[in-house]
Amino acid sequence: MRISVLFSGGKDSSLSALLMEPFFEIELVTCSFGLLPNGELAAKTAKKLGFPHRVLFLEREILEKAYEEIMKNGFPKSAINYIHEKAVETLASDPEVELIADGTRRDDRVPVLSISQIRSIEDRLGVQYICPLKGYGKKTVSILVERYLRIEEGPSESTQKADYEAELRELIRQRDGEEKIKELFPSHIQSHVLSRKNYPEESMP
Amino acid sequence: MRISVLFSGGKDSSLSALLMEPFFEIELVTCSFGLLPNGELAAKTAKKLGFPHRVLFLEREILEKAYEEIMKNGFPKSAINYIHEKAVETLASDPEVELIADGTRRDDRVPVLSISQIRSIEDRLGVQYICPLKGYGKKTVSILVERYLRIEEGPSESTQKADYEAELRELIRQRDGEEKIKELFPSHIQSHVLSRKNYPEESMP
Repeated sequence: MRISVLFSGGKDSSLSALLMEPFFEIELVTCSFGLLPNGELAAKTAKKLGFPHRVLFLEREILEKAYEEIMKNGFPKSAINYIHEKAVETLASDPEVELIADGTRRDDRVPVLSISQIRSIEDRLGVQYICPLKGYGKKTVSILVERYLRIEEGPSESTQKADYEAELRELIRQRDGEEKIKELFPSHIQSHVLSRKNYPEESMP
Repeated sequence: MRISVLFSGGKDSSLSALLMEPFFEIELVTCSFGLLPNGELAAKTAKKLGFPHRVLFLEREILEKAYEEIMKNGFPKSAINYIHEKAVETLASDPEVELIADGTRRDDRVPVLSISQIRSIEDRLGVQYICPLKGYGKKTVSILVERYLRIEEGPSESTQKADYEAELRELIRQRDGEEKIKELFPSHIQSHVLSRKNYPEESMP
């Protein structure tokens, strides 16, 4: 049973794939507007993890609408959620895709789909949507990441991650300059996965 | 890393244990008020699944309070949720227990803990609480159950399952008779797990 996992190269989507690996045939899918080399960056990480990977290009108008949204609101939450919803829909529209997963965690507020958005996508597009980390709190996720993954962490402005935020930031940089990005995006710590750890040997002190 | 999984012998708690098996050391825990042989029933299923199992006896006053609740409300939701919260708290109070899981699914309405109840238990009692099926919809759970478990299904009044509902029903039977049970509990389909399937051979047509 093949499952397509939305993959940014970050720890949550990587851990999601690892948790499902014993039960599903994993395919990693990175969505990109082609504005940054997100697909190539994620492909390298996918290779390190040992999963097949492909890039799914999203319609440019999705990014434009997200740009309007963030400019209107002054903060990124609804813009990022909008892109995420459209990414899941685009993937779900592929007739070969029957199961979709992402790295949404219990305590995430963005990007996250509401239960009614999920049911609507499942019913309209004939897919099943799974969030393997949805029942896991932050502390448990950290323990599992520490055990199974080698990661690199840093502030969002300098850490390479193939997510929607990176491309939305890039569009704002091109149109409105560096200062506007600082104004709209609160700085936060991002993770970038380097490889698997060969538990238990490598994770033991 | 040992995790204590609340276990009724039903398909959801069994599947939860299976999904976590590659990543945690599983211990199944069946809560009982001692009113029915729930512990023995679940122990047999646990043995078939190949997991260590123990029975945790809950304070009788929890069942009494749940009885008051169902008599007041006229339906079982809040009574069952109350027992579930107290069961998780009782298990979390064991100093040797650091991780707790249950079989709560995405679409479950009972028993389910709210996000604030979960955070309160985690903070007060120093545990991590995990719901491995929280991000799985009904259809995906059915597919996984079909693949990995051999189950028996039937109406709730005749299917043996070691859950809180069985003991609450029994108390009402003793005090108020069979008719009262039919009035308070809507009949629904329950599952009882018989054994694992040795995927892929046995689940293939």
